[in-house]
Formats: sequence, C-alpha cells, structure tokens
Amino acid sequence: MNVKQLLQQVREGLLSIDEASGLLQNLPFEDMGFAKLDHHRELRTGYGEVIYGPGKTNEQLIEIISHFKSNGANILATRVTEAQASAVKAIFPETEYDTISRMLSLVQDKKEPVGMVAVCCAGTGDLPVAEEAAKTAEFFGSNVGRFYDVGVAGIHRLFSKLEDIKKANAIVAVAGMEGALGSVLAGLVDIPVIAVPTSVGYGAAFEGVSALLTMLNSCAEGLAVVNIDNGFGGGYMACQINRLIEKKHEK
Amino acid sequence: MNVKQLLQQVREGLLSIDEASGLLQNLPFEDMGFAKLDHHRELRTGYGEVIYGPGKTNEQLIEIISHFKSNGANILATRVTEAQASAVKAIFPETEYDTISRMLSLVQDKKEPVGMVAVCCAGTGDLPVAEEAAKTAEFFGSNVGRFYDVGVAGIHRLFSKLEDIKKANAIVAVAGMEGALGSVLAGLVDIPVIAVPTSVGYGAAFEGVSALLTMLNSCAEGLAVVNIDNGFGGGYMACQINRLIEKKHEK
Amino acid sequence: MNVKQLLQQVREGLLSIDEASGLLQNLPFEDMGFAKLDHHRELRTGYGEVIYGPGKTNEQLIEIISHFKSNGANILATRVTEAQASAVKAIFPETEYDTISRMLSLVQDKKEPVGMVAVCCAGTGDLPVAEEAAKTAEFFGSNVGRFYDVGVAGIHRLFSKLEDIKKANAIVAVAGMEGALGSVLAGLVDIPVIAVPTSVGYGAAFEGVSALLTMLNSCAEGLAVVNIDNGFGGGYMACQINRLIEKKHEK
Amino acid sequence: MNVKQLLQQVREGLLSIDEASGLLQNLPFEDMGFAKLDHHRELRTGYGEVIYGPGKTNEQLIEIISHFKSNGANILATRVTEAQASAVKAIFPETEYDTISRMLSLVQDKKEPVGMVAVCCAGTGDLPVAEEAAKTAEFFGSNVGRFYDVGVAGIHRLFSKLEDIKKANAIVAVAGMEGALGSVLAGLVDIPVIAVPTSVGYGAAFEGVSALLTMLNSCAEGLAVVNIDNGFGGGYMACQINRLIEKKHEK
Amino acid sequence: MNVKQLLQQVREGLLSIDEASGLLQNLPFEDMGFAKLDHHRELRTGYGEVIYGPGKTNEQLIEIISHFKSNGANILATRVTEAQASAVKAIFPETEYDTISRMLSLVQDKKEPVGMVAVCCAGTGDLPVAEEAAKTAEFFGSNVGRFYDVGVAGIHRLFSKLEDIKKANAIVAVAGMEGALGSVLAGLVDIPVIAVPTSVGYGAAFEGVSALLTMLNSCAEGLAVVNIDNGFGGGYMACQINRLIEKKHEK
Amino acid sequence: MNVKQLLQQVREGLLSIDEASGLLQNLPFEDMGFAKLDHHRELRTGYGEVIYGPGKTNEQLIEIISHFKSNGANILATRVTEAQASAVKAIFPETEYDTISRMLSLVQDKKEPVGMVAVCCAGTGDLPVAEEAAKTAEFFGSNVGRFYDVGVAGIHRLFSKLEDIKKANAIVAVAGMEGALGSVLAGLVDIPVIAVPTSVGYGAAFEGVSALLTMLNSCAEGLAVVNIDNGFGGGYMACQINRLIEKKHEK
Amino acid sequence: MNVKQLLQQVREGLLSIDEASGLLQNLPFEDMGFAKLDHHRELRTGYGEVIYGPGKTNEQLIEIISHFKSNGANILATRVTEAQASAVKAIFPETEYDTISRMLSLVQDKKEPVGMVAVCCAGTGDLPVAEEAAKTAEFFGSNVGRFYDVGVAGIHRLFSKLEDIKKANAIVAVAGMEGALGSVLAGLVDIPVIAVPTSVGYGAAFEGVSALLTMLNSCAEGLAVVNIDNGFGGGYMACQINRLIEKKHEK
Amino acid sequence: MNVKQLLQQVREGLLSIDEASGLLQNLPFEDMGFAKLDHHRELRTGYGEVIYGPGKTNEQLIEIISHFKSNGANILATRVTEAQASAVKAIFPETEYDTISRMLSLVQDKKEPVGMVAVCCAGTGDLPVAEEAAKTAEFFGSNVGRFYDVGVAGIHRLFSKLEDIKKANAIVAVAGMEGALGSVLAGLVDIPVIAVPTSVGYGAAFEGVSALLTMLNSCAEGLAVVNIDNGFGGGYMACQINRLIEKKHEK
Repeated sequence: MNVKQLLQQVREGLLSIDEASGLLQNLPFEDMGFAKLDHHRELRTGYGEVIYGPGKTNEQLIEIISHFKSNGANILATRVTEAQASAVKAIFPETEYDTISRMLSLVQDKKEPVGMVAVCCAGTGDLPVAEEAAKTAEFFGSNVGRFYDVGVAGIHRLFSKLEDIKKANAIVAVAGMEGALGSVLAGLVDIPVIAVPTSVGYGAAFEGVSALLTMLNSCAEGLAVVNIDNGFGGGYMACQINRLIEKKHEK
Repeated sequence: MNVKQLLQQVREGLLSIDEASGLLQNLPFEDMGFAKLDHHRELRTGYGEVIYGPGKTNEQLIEIISHFKSNGANILATRVTEAQASAVKAIFPETEYDTISRMLSLVQDKKEPVGMVAVCCAGTGDLPVAEEAAKTAEFFGSNVGRFYDVGVAGIHRLFSKLEDIKKANAIVAVAGMEGALGSVLAGLVDIPVIAVPTSVGYGAAFEGVSALLTMLNSCAEGLAVVNIDNGFGGGYMACQINRLIEKKHEK
Repeated sequence: MNVKQLLQQVREGLLSIDEASGLLQNLPFEDMGFAKLDHHRELRTGYGEVIYGPGKTNEQLIEIISHFKSNGANILATRVTEAQASAVKAIFPETEYDTISRMLSLVQDKKEPVGMVAVCCAGTGDLPVAEEAAKTAEFFGSNVGRFYDVGVAGIHRLFSKLEDIKKANAIVAVAGMEGALGSVLAGLVDIPVIAVPTSVGYGAAFEGVSALLTMLNSCAEGLAVVNIDNGFGGGYMACQINRLIEKKHEK
Repeated sequence: MNVKQLLQQVREGLLSIDEASGLLQNLPFEDMGFAKLDHHRELRTGYGEVIYGPGKTNEQLIEIISHFKSNGANILATRVTEAQASAVKAIFPETEYDTISRMLSLVQDKKEPVGMVAVCCAGTGDLPVAEEAAKTAEFFGSNVGRFYDVGVAGIHRLFSKLEDIKKANAIVAVAGMEGALGSVLAGLVDIPVIAVPTSVGYGAAFEGVSALLTMLNSCAEGLAVVNIDNGFGGGYMACQINRLIEKKHEK
Repeated sequence: MNVKQLLQQVREGLLSIDEASGLLQNLPFEDMGFAKLDHHRELRTGYGEVIYGPGKTNEQLIEIISHFKSNGANILATRVTEAQASAVKAIFPETEYDTISRMLSLVQDKKEPVGMVAVCCAGTGDLPVAEEAAKTAEFFGSNVGRFYDVGVAGIHRLFSKLEDIKKANAIVAVAGMEGALGSVLAGLVDIPVIAVPTSVGYGAAFEGVSALLTMLNSCAEGLAVVNIDNGFGGGYMACQINRLIEKKHEK
Repeated sequence: MNVKQLLQQVREGLLSIDEASGLLQNLPFEDMGFAKLDHHRELRTGYGEVIYGPGKTNEQLIEIISHFKSNGANILATRVTEAQASAVKAIFPETEYDTISRMLSLVQDKKEPVGMVAVCCAGTGDLPVAEEAAKTAEFFGSNVGRFYDVGVAGIHRLFSKLEDIKKANAIVAVAGMEGALGSVLAGLVDIPVIAVPTSVGYGAAFEGVSALLTMLNSCAEGLAVVNIDNGFGGGYMACQINRLIEKKHEK
Repeated sequence: MNVKQLLQQVREGLLSIDEASGLLQNLPFEDMGFAKLDHHRELRTGYGEVIYGPGKTNEQLIEIISHFKSNGANILATRVTEAQASAVKAIFPETEYDTISRMLSLVQDKKEPVGMVAVCCAGTGDLPVAEEAAKTAEFFGSNVGRFYDVGVAGIHRLFSKLEDIKKANAIVAVAGMEGALGSVLAGLVDIPVIAVPTSVGYGAAFEGVSALLTMLNSCAEGLAVVNIDNGFGGGYMACQINRLIEKKHEK
Repeated sequence: MNVKQLLQQVREGLLSIDEASGLLQNLPFEDMGFAKLDHHRELRTGYGEVIYGPGKTNEQLIEIISHFKSNGANILATRVTEAQASAVKAIFPETEYDTISRMLSLVQDKKEPVGMVAVCCAGTGDLPVAEEAAKTAEFFGSNVGRFYDVGVAGIHRLFSKLEDIKKANAIVAVAGMEGALGSVLAGLVDIPVIAVPTSVGYGAAFEGVSALLTMLNSCAEGLAVVNIDNGFGGGYMACQINRLIEKKHEK
C-alpha cells in the first residue's frame, strides 16, 4: 500500500485516523516519496552516470554499462585499467578509453557546455590526475581550459597564462611534490581554487602528504582541498561551481 | 622614472630603443603597473581589510587598525584574544568584539548582503569556528544562515533543517570528532560544501586530524576541505562562491 | 498542521488525495512523528541525561542541570572540572561530584541495577578513566565489579581475580602504556571485552596511541576498542550489552 | 605423576606433606588442571576451529584441516588465497571456498543458529570484509542479516532498512573511506555496534586509518572498533554478544 | 585453607582424592604458593622498593614511603616533583632529593656495589635522564661511571674517555636530538649498550622520536633501546646485566 | 610585436604613450624579456640539460634527447630504468648508462671541472644515491672525491680519510638507517655538508624517515638536508657551492 | 713510515722532535695502531664473519664468501633470498641455507657453545625472525632454547614453559601484532629481555609499529627493544650478554 | 707526559722504541694533539663563542659568559628567555638582548663583515626565526640583507626585491604555513638557498611539519633544509658559504 492508497482508504473510512497515522510511520521509506531525502541530485541529472572502476570485475563493469546504455544515459567510468577497458570495448566498441586519465566514457546525448573551468598543473607526472579533473568537468557540462606547464619552479610560465586562467569561474590546481601551485594561484586570482594534491614525488613526499599539507596550509584565501589524486572530486566541484554561476547568469 | 615618462623620452628621442628596452627590464616591479600581478583582489575590494591577530602586540594591532580606520575601511581582525580586544577597545570603543568567534570588527561602510551561505555545525565545541566562518561570510557581503545543532549523532535534526539549508548557494560544514557532517550533507544536496574540520575531540581525534581525514575521504562529491579550525578560510571561500553566483545573476 | 489533523481533513474531504500526499512530503520532519528516526533511544530512557562538560560555561551547565532537574531526571555530567563542580554545587548542593572520575551526578529516581559489568585496570594513573567507565555503567543500570590492580607486569594478581571477573556479562579493560591488559583478558575469558586505552605513559606512549594500537591488534577474539581515555564510551557499551543480556533473561 | 596420583600418595603416606606441597608447585602447568587458566573458551566449544591462513604452506594447512576433520570438528579458515584453497580442495573436495570472503570452511555438525547479527556496509569494495564478518557470525551460531548498500552518501537507503536492522542483537558496521556508517548507525539504534574500518579508499584514506579514526571518534554511544579489515574480529564479537543475549533468553 | 592444610586433610582421610583435586583447582591463586608465577623478582630483592611518582598525591606518597620505611627497606621514588619532595621531606627529613634526576631516596641498608655501569650522554639537556639512569643503577647495586660530555658533535671527547668506558659491563647511552651517540658507542666497543633517547631538541626532534628512530636503526650490533626519557629503565637493565655478569664471576 | 618593435612604433609616433603603456602591460610575459623572472639560471648554462626519467615513455625520452642532442647540449637523465636505457641506446648508442646511479648521459662538450666536492657514504646500499650525487656534481663542472666506506659503525675508516675530505669545498653525506654520518662529518670539518638521507634500512627506518630526522636534528652546525634518496639535489647544491667558491677565486 | 720507524729515526737523530711531532699528527690513521679505535671487536673474534645479503649481487656475495672461506672463517649471511642462496650453493655446495630464517652459513671451525639464550615467540608468522635470532646466537657461541608457541592469547602455554625459560642468561622475545609477549615475560622473570617486534599483523599493526610501541612502553623493567624484524640484532645482543656472563663465570 | 716529552726521551734513549710506541697509543687523546680530530673549527675562530640557552640556569649562563668575556671573546647566546637575559644584564650590563630573536650578545672585537647573506621571510610570525638567522650570519662575519615581506600569497612583493636578493652569495628562506617561499626563490635564482621551516601556522601545519615537507620536496634545485625554527643553523650555513666564497675571492 502506498501513500495515496492509504489516503484513499482514510477518505473512504476504511482506515481510522489512528490506524492511518500508525501505518504512515511504518511505511517503507521510499514508498513515502519523502522529498527531503531524495538523492536524485540536480547536477548529475541529465548529464549521466559515474562508475568507480577499482574492485569491479569485467563482468560487473559490462553489466552496469549495459544497463545505463540501454537507458540512453551518458556514462563515465573512472580509474579503469587497460585490461578492464579492453574487456568493455570488446562488447561496446563505441565506448572511448583515455589511457592518461584512465577514464572510459560513452556519450549518447551531448549537452552544450557552459562557462569555463581552468585545470592547471605543473609536470607530466600530474597529467593523469589533471586529465581526470578536466574530463570530469567536461562530462558534467563545463568548458575546460587546460594549463599544464605552469609549476612554481619556473613561475614565469604561470604568469604568461594568467590572463587566460582568470577567465574561468573556478580553477582546479593539480600538484604533487611541494604542491605550491594552488597557493600561488589563489594569491593571484579571486576565483575559487580547488586544489588536488597528487602522489607524484618520492621520499618525504610521502605519497602526496606533502602536497596535501601545503595546500591545507595555504596563506592565500579562496582555496579548498580534495583527497590526494582525486581528480574526479576536484573536477566535479569546480564544475558544480561553474554551472551554478552560469545558471544564475542565464536566468 | 615611470613607464609613461620612459615612453615619452623614447618618443622624444632622448632614449634609444635599446636603452629603453634595457631600462624597462630593470624598472622596479610596481612602477611598471604590471597588471597581471596586481594583488588587489576583487572580492575584498570595497568590503574591507582583514588582520590576523596572533603574534601581534597590542601596539601593532592598534596602529594597523588606526591606519585602516582613517581610510574609512571596514576592518575584520581574526583570532583576537580578549586581552588584545580590551587594549584595542580602550582606544577605539566603536570596535566590536565577539567572544565566541574571537573576532574584532569595525564596519564603517555597510554593504547590502547578497545570496546565502549556510553555516552548519554539530555541537557547542564547534561554535567558535562556525561563528568565525559565519562572520567572515557576512563581512564580505553574504547573507548567512546558521544551522548549529545538526550533528550526525542525531541525524533527524539535520533532516528537519534540510529545506532551509538547500536555499544556500554554498555550505560551510564545521565538524570535529568524527567529522561526518560534511560527507552526509554533500550526499544530500547539490551545493558546494566547504568542510572545516575542528580540533574538538580528544584522544584519537588528534587535534582535528580525524575530522580532516574523514572530510578528505568523503565518498560524496561536491565537497572540499580547508585547514583544521580555519573558519575564516571556509567562510571566505563559501562567500566567494556565493557572490560569484549572485553577481552573474544580477547582470 | 500535524499528521492526524491532515488525515482528519482527508477524511472530511477538505483535502484531496493529491494535496494531502504533497503536504505529507513537505511536513517538517518532527511533526511527522516518523518513528524510524526517533532518537529517544531505549537504553537511556528512564535512566537519565548525560551532559558533556568541556567547553561549557558555568552558567550553561547550571541552566541545563536546572532544566533536567525540574523534569525529575537523573543527571550525569562528564569531564567536569573542579571549578565547574563548585559553581554547580553552590546552586544545587544535592549534586555529587567525584574528583577521580570528574563526574557530577544527581540521582532523583534510582533504578535497581542488573547483571554485572567488570571494570579492570592496572595502575593508579588509569583510575580516572576506569571510574568514569564504572560510574557510567552504574548510572545506566548495571552492577559494577571493580578490579583495579590487575596489570600484566604482575600477572598473578590478574589470575587471582579471574573467577570473579568471569561472573560479568561484559568487561571494560582500561590500560595505558603498553595496553596489554585487554588482550590478555580476552584470551582468558569468553565475555565481550571493551578495551579503553588511556593516555597514561610518556615518550613513545604518544598520549595513548601505543595502548590503542596494542588493543586494536589483539590476537585474542572478543575485544573491541573505544577512543583513548573514553571511559564513558566503554562503560556505556558494556552496560548496554549487560542490560540486553539481562533483559532477555528477565522475560 | 598427575594431581590425583600425588594426592593418592599423600593419602597412602608415600609422600610427606612438605614433599607434596613442593611437588605441586613444580608440576607442569597443564597437569594440574588449573581451571582458572583453562583456555577452552565457551563460545567456540561445539562450534568448531578457526585457522588463520596467511603464512601457512599448503602442506601445513592440509595437515591442520586433516587433524580437525578427523575429530569431526567444524572448520573455518580465514584469509585463504585461491591457491591455498585449490590445494586443500584437491585433498578435501567437501570443503567450501568463498572467493569474496576468502574463507574456506567445512561444516560437519551444523548447529541451529540463534538471534540475529546485522552486517551493514556501503559499497562493493567493503564486501570481502563484510562477508568475512557475516560468515564468521554464522559459523559460530548466529543468524545474520546482510545490509550491503547502506552508505551515508545515499543515506535514504540506510533509513529504508532501519526497521530490519533494529531486529538484530548486535550490528557489525563495515566501512572504508570516511567510515561514517558506524557513527550514523549508533546514533539511530540502541544496539551494540562493532565497527570495522576497511582499507578501501585511496590517498588520505591511508589504508584504513581515516575510517579507523572516524569510528574511534564517534560522538554516538554504543560503538566500539576492531582492527582495519578485521571482519573476523567484528563478526566474532557481534556473534558473542548475540549468543549471550539469546542464551540468557532461552533459560 | 592453604595447600598444606589441604594435604593434611587428605592424609587424614578427611578429604577424598576427588574433593581435594577439585579444591586445589579452585584455591585462590596466591594461597597455592605457585612458584612459577612468583613476582618477587631476584634483582630487586634486598635492594629496595621503587615508587613511580607521577599522579600520586602527597598523602599517597607519604603513606607508601612510611610503609616501606617501617619495613627497613631502601626506597627509590622516580619523577618526583619539587612540591612532592618538600611534602615528603617535611615528614621524613632523612630522605634525599636530587633536583636533577628528580629522584627521592632513602637508603637504610646500603649494599656493596659491584662491577661497573657506564652512563654516557652529550649535553646538559640530557642530564636529568642520565642521572636517573645512574642513580637507578647505583640503587640496585652497581658501581657507575659517569661520562657526561661525549656527544658526537665533538667526537674527540668521546674517544678520550673510551678506555674508561670499556671497563664497564654495560653501557647506558643517553642522547636527544639526532641521538647518534648509542650507535657510535656500539661501533667502538663490544659491551651491551642500552640506548635511552631523550626528548631534548625541538622541531623535527618530535619530542624524542628522532633520537628513538636513530637508535632503533643503528647499524652497529649490541645495542637495544628503551622508551624516550626512560632513564630508570635504561639504568635498571644495565644494572641487571652488570650484576648477572658479576654474580657468575663471584661464584 | 615585441618590446623593441613597440618602442620603435612609439618613436615613430605610430603608437601613443597611453596605447604603448597599455600594450606593455598586456604583452605575453616572455615577449617582454623581463629579466627579473628569467629562468635561464646561470649554473646550468653551458653545462647541459637534465631530464627526470620516471613517468616518461620511451618515445618521450627519445624525443627529448633527440631535441637536446641536435642542439649540441650535454644531457643528463636521472632515475632511468634499464628498460628505458635500452630503448634510448638502441637509437643513440653514444649515450652512456650507469646501472648503479641509474643515470643516462651524453656529453658532447666537456668542460674543465673545478674545485672539489666530496661525496661520502657508508655502505653498498647507499651507492645508487651517492653515485647520483657524484655524477650530478661532475656533470655540472665539479671534480668529485668519492669516499664510500666511511660509516659511523666503523668510525676509524672515516678518520683515515678525513684529510682528503677536508680538501673539498662542499661535502655530500649520503646515509640511510640511523643516518649519523652527516652529523659526525659536520662536527669534524668546517665545510658545508649537504646531507642526503636514503631509504636504505628496514622496519623503523620507515623508508628513510629515520635518517632524515637524524640529519635535521644534527647538533653540529653547517649541515642542511635534501629529500630522501635525492642524490641529484645533494650533488647539485654541493656543486653550486663549489663552483661559486671557485668562480670568485678565479677572478 | 710507521710509528716504530719514526721513533727509530728520532732515536737516531734523523728526525727532530718538532718534525716527529708534526709527522705523528699527520700519519694515516691506521698506521698509528691507535688502539682505542680498533674495531676488531671481541665478540666476533674467532666466531666468524657476517654478511648482510640485501642489495648484493650474486657475484658480490660469492666473492665475499670465497674470500672469507679461504681464510678459514665461519660465515653467516643474513636475509639471503632463495635465488641468492641457489647461486651461492652452485659454487659452494658445502654452505647451508635455511629457508625459514633466510640465512646462509658455512661453519668451518665449530666452537663449543656456552650458557643459554631463550628465544620465545607466539605464532608461525614470527618464526623467520625468531629463527634469525636463534641462529645468530648459536653462530656466535650460545646454546639456544626455542620456545615458539607461547603467545599471550593462550597465556597458559607460556606459563608451562616458564621454568625452562628461566634457565637462560638472556631472553629474546619476538612478537608481532599487539606485541605483549616481551612485557609479560619481563614481568615474570629477572633476566634481560631483548624484545624484537615483527611486522606480522595487518591494518593498524602498521608493519610492526604497534608491536614496537607496545614493547617500548612496557611497564615491566629489564626489557629493551631492537628494530622491527631485527632478529639478528636481538640474537646478537642476547648472545653478547650470555657470553659475558659465562665468561666471567669461567674464570 | 706529552708527545714532545716522549719523543725527547726516545731521543735520549730513556724510552725504548717499543715502550714509546705503546705509550703513544695510550696517551690521553688531547695530549696527542691529534690534528685530524681537532674541533677548533675555522669558521668560528676569531669570531666568538655560541651558547645554547635552553635548560641552563641563570647561574650557569652567567658563569659561561664570564669565562668567555674574560678571554676577550665575542659571545652569542641563542634562545635566551627574557628572564635569563635580565639576570645576565644585571651582572653584565654591556651585553645586548634582542627580544625578537631572543639572542643575547656581547661583541668585544668586531670584525669587518664580508659578502652578503639574504634573509627572506613572509610574515611577522616568522620574524623571530628570520632574525635569529640574520644575527647569526652577522655575528660570524657576513653582511646581511633582510627581505621580510616577500611571501608567495602576494608574490609581486617578492619580485620587486629580486634584484637585490640576487646580490647575495647565499639565501636563507624562512617560512611557515605552506612554506613555498624557499621553492619559489630557488626557482628564480642560482644561489644556494638554505630553507628554514617555522612552526608558524595552526591545524594541519603540525608545528612546522607542513613547511618542512614542502621544502624537502621542492622541485627547484639548489635548496637544502634545516630543522624547524632553526634560524641559527640556517644563518650559520649561509654565512659559512658566503665566507668561503669571499675568502677565495680575497686571495
């Protein structure tokens, strides 16, 4: 019995007020359509589904993709190994696999991107994470500017790109080792910076801890941090901010 | 000699091209008016000046405040001790000191706040950090909604406030101990969540490390983290996002 | 409008089924009396209220106690400083303060304790935490056996008490320094052991981390751990287990 | 000479009182049948034997299983690799191997399960640990309810299962990453929660440390923690509590 | 009834063999005089009693000392504050307090010291720990050689004392900061070195962790480590080794 | 348009002063030849180019080398795997690969080395890092003295080489495990010591953390530290100091 | 020129006092025969040579063994992989390789062992480290008693072996996981205990850190600790103590 | 008997060659005048003596200063508290105390400073450490340039001072919080940078660990690091390099 059936029975006098009140409190959660807890979040709606690759068997991956594909959804799978990608492509050759970001995607219904997210990083080692951020922001509807050779050890390169970076609504700053890029960027612009520490480095980089701490201790305002190597999280949040800004704008 | 004087001399033939080129490269940085590096960041402009209290003598604090005050600027000093506040108020009785957030402020030119930032926290221990975030967002021009009793140990309280929280453009989630509030919130809304871990707790809370790690490892998207107890940083970034959204909206 | 009023209006035809369904989904959470999320948890019911002392002003403490007292509730305040206790006792001389466990209590309606919780510890340094556990278990309705000189450095003392300890339904093992007590106990009995590491020790004890790790790595089964110095948490859980066992028994 | 023989000789005057007293103190420990130190713990009695797989050669595993099997015992081997399992099954095809929990078992004398243990977890990555907990609780005589898709990032799923979870005598909450599940559960029910952090996650998850700290710092009462990935320990303790509750009940 | 009484009753036929066997297993532990678990350890016997000062009230300290004193025992109290010492000396002016090692002692029955323990350290900051080690070794019956200015930053000073150091049966090497003294010493002699890291230093000394790790990683053999600042533990073990060597020698 | 073209147009009246001033501020950074930010650093000039091997594909490595080679530059690639080296040598057989330091080099224009850098280490495990330091210093123009068997566990070997070590302008002290070499050296000489901790060791060496902390806490002056295993960084800085000393000398 | 030649020349007037004094100070270290720094340590003398296996090529290992073998020395190589062992045995089939302790040995001149070292451990996982300790103590001349199933989770097994353990002059206590064995042992005996933490365990065992901290924080005296998994170091030091005791005894 | 007396006796035939050889090896170390180990290091010679203040009583400080003063030496005492300084100045009013660097000094024989050391830092919180570095470099004979407002959050200020900074022979980069200053500086100049992390910051700054890690992981070459807050160590090493460069220059 769902809520409307219950109310119908109250209307018809088949249920007393007390009975109905008791039943309401015991109905399975989802049957109530309790709006406040609805997890269908706006940002994703209409853009597609995300699958976290690690720990999934090829069979599981294929089954999930098959399910979403038949619904006409766009699909983005993260941290997909080459072996997983091969298995998927053998079944769905129309999927695309990017070896750098290790993302597998299938876009069945392309939306027009809006605004701009700037993804900045220093060296080749940071590229997988930066590309994960960039492709995530693109998948969820943002234009992306890539600025991939702007580390603080040669800070003039960063300055020469600054005018373009400042056109973004949000910045993703990807950096390993000493991780100073986010801090320097946040000191130069007044745009929200999502800093993504990477595990690039050795020794006292401690698999990204050094970059993480640097970013958390930034003395420049307007910077917040996501998990080490979490390009997806950084790209998602920058995209979220970018689209919220543009959405208001459009109205 | 500034840039225009230099160019004038080139025009007049008083400087050769080579001389002028050399001089340009050696001019003191600021004299060049080199726009790309201008640090007068937009957000702060017109809202006021921030002073970091710790390590400053009473005399230094008073001198800085005196300087800004005479310029007609709004002033916000953070982490001001009661002793510092007393010394300042003896000179400038028009300043206001808030014992919870430990902020001292003087608003000489109030701006109309825009949009809304939601500041959420769980318990009384988190109040100083939450208030620092709230007052910072207000100082820089945001309306602020305070939701101060919404910890995950009594999660129904959070749900009862969810509709109001969802009206914000950005959320600051302040939490110590296990720090799950940010994660739960980001799972329920599609608004950027700036999570602020606090040092509240004991034992294996390790002065905020537990809450920090919880927040960095959130499996919900749309959440980024600032330093432990950094209410100012969380409030600033949420305000920055809020105002960018509203600004586009206004146009 | 609460749920029953809403149903009444449905009954009377004042609300359509669709209107009522919509209203139901938007009612403030608590008005729904939604049982599943009721936080009035059983264990505490009828036993009393707990107040966490740190960070509360004397005024706040007194106000909260006054409120609970007028309801006739039993009251247990944890981690209360001597200064806080003095301020409270000046107003409510009938409250009792225990300097060892730093707990302040007022029992207005004493319940008959059931079963038995054994609280074990090694040295005088662990007493505050052990007593916090013991008093918590007593407050929530358990008999408590105290075994306070049974550290592993003189293991024969532990053995001489083993027969009595084995009469408990649950054991709280409190230990600092190398923290081996929990592990040794869990190897000797088949009763759930809640291990509480304490911050007692110096140097590489790292404020309780050593004892915490020892307990987490116990090779004996039937042992779980709470936070460092968390006597309240250990006592609560042991009491919870004890009462659940006795409750079934009584039926 | 055992204790009874010794006493017989005392009776017969073959040993003086002093000689006998001295001999008693020097008898090998086990010969004395010294009850207090008996390690035949009750819970396991009649249920079977547990073997820890790692570091054992195939030959050792087979020998141990062979020994227990010939005694008619039930056998549970944990953390058995597929290679170990193959080697064992080649000799004892009647053993069962579960690839998810990596447990190998042989039940020769099935007991009727009692009560209920609820095993809850969030994602597929936590399944191996959750299943280890569930199978352990089953092996030692508990009914088990599995709730495997109830993470806090989609908290409505947890609520929809809450009524069923509350029927358990003890809960095992398995979670990696931010590990908030245990805390949220303990805030919603009044049943002992054994929290098992998992090493699922990356970056600042630090191989389970983040989830471990979250759980240790839970602000909800009635929760204790076992080692990272220790599904066996969590399942054992929950089963122990469950059976103690049911045992009293049966009387 | 003790063991002898029990055996007597067996002899007299007042107890059956079975009854006596059962009683034996249930006798309180200590009544059995079970030699294997006797904790009256040899080294201390005849030398005196040790009291750990921290966390004891003045009253407790005085009571314990009074008890031991009336037995004629030698007494050594460690980590005694000046306030504690004053309170004790007001009652027992015959006790001696050493402000450097923070030890309070009363020797009522002086034994002849044997062999030699060398206590080495580098700087003035390490003196409290070194003296705690030295006085402990003396209290338990060793001659002690003090070598207190032999840090590795001026390694020639160490070499000039080496001949004397080599006369010891055991060495205590006390060092903070980089803690290299133990390692250098163990590379130069063939005598057991007990290394005691101290919390002397700042910054990345991490309260003694740096010295602790240095000592644990010594590439020289014949070195083992005790807890940070644990002069008592280092002195005790060196004394134990020294006396065992001398004891065999004497026979 | 570059700066000189711009100035020429000002001279010729083709650009107004205001226009030129505006353009200057918007010129791409490098076009300005802004000397202060020039990253063509002196030390490297004329000596060659460095390539960081890890994370580069064989194709990328070959392309970069090909580019530098055609410019006649000297080339030094660090942390090159044997597989990478084979691929490169198949194309450029004139490159040299050193299996110990894992460096690949091509010297097309050899410069005369100056001064002396002493590279010291203890055991065979430290050789890869020590050789990386030595070869780096040689590549950038220093003579190098290698002292590879001078660990503190056999300190007489260090002393026998001291006279030669003291001839250097800068010392690189490479050490793992307890890492005391740097500290002992800095105590014996008055030459800048660049200490390089290595990840050699096991257990509580924590992949080089122990040696790193030892070095940071050295009580001898004149010692600074680079990252764990960073032979390149240590060799570079020692070489930099050596050449600065010699350069002044030559004038 | 060595010291005696120098003195001869002084005697003969061929060197002035000042010249000779100067030369003495500049003689290569070893030529001076400076006894204080002689590293030929007593314990090893006559027992043999130790080789640390890791990082050595097969060729290097064979060369070193060949050198020592031709000198008639006994040889002990530690942490030798099976691959290394095979390569060595192909050349020197008379060497023995123990797969558990991963030690390779060649005894050409067997000495009579003295005294006794007790090596204790809990489970099969600790065997490699325990055997490394045992074989090291044997190699350097001690009798060894092995007690390999005495963990604290079944503490009665430890007690049943206590009389035999107490016959040793020194104890090596090897333990992973919670590492309580050393502490329990040191509380029961008055013999020096060298505790060796092992990396056995998972999760919060942190590769041996848990056991290490437990051992460092032992509240029983007479216990010191070596590096994680350092069976060699533990065995060496116990043997050193054992032999020093016996040596005095023999005189 | 010293070396020359010994040689004289050889000359005179009063000592045999063998006797003299034996005596030489047993002479107290310093009597030998063994030059290689002489710790009178060059840099300090003629500049003065350094005293480390912490842990010294006023009496000890005064005694040491009195001793050096009577020798005419220059004196530099570090980390002197105001209370210590007052006590010293009461006796020696001619000493100078600097409240920022907490250094007490007495210069009796001023030397002409040479070259230049640049000391750079970001904020007021870093001043005590920066001044300690600057005053140390001055004390040991370097000119010092102070650049105290050049943090990376306002990077244009750093650039405006770059020309002056580049005139130094060595740079001390003092920074807390994210600590990026050293890295940015080393990327801009080709001068050795000694980076000094400070404990300035809060939360995840972890008392300087964040800045320390940032500096150790710098991707710019020519940077090495000293201990947290070790301004003395940084200033000393920069001065050492500066003077070595100038010394060669002078010749």
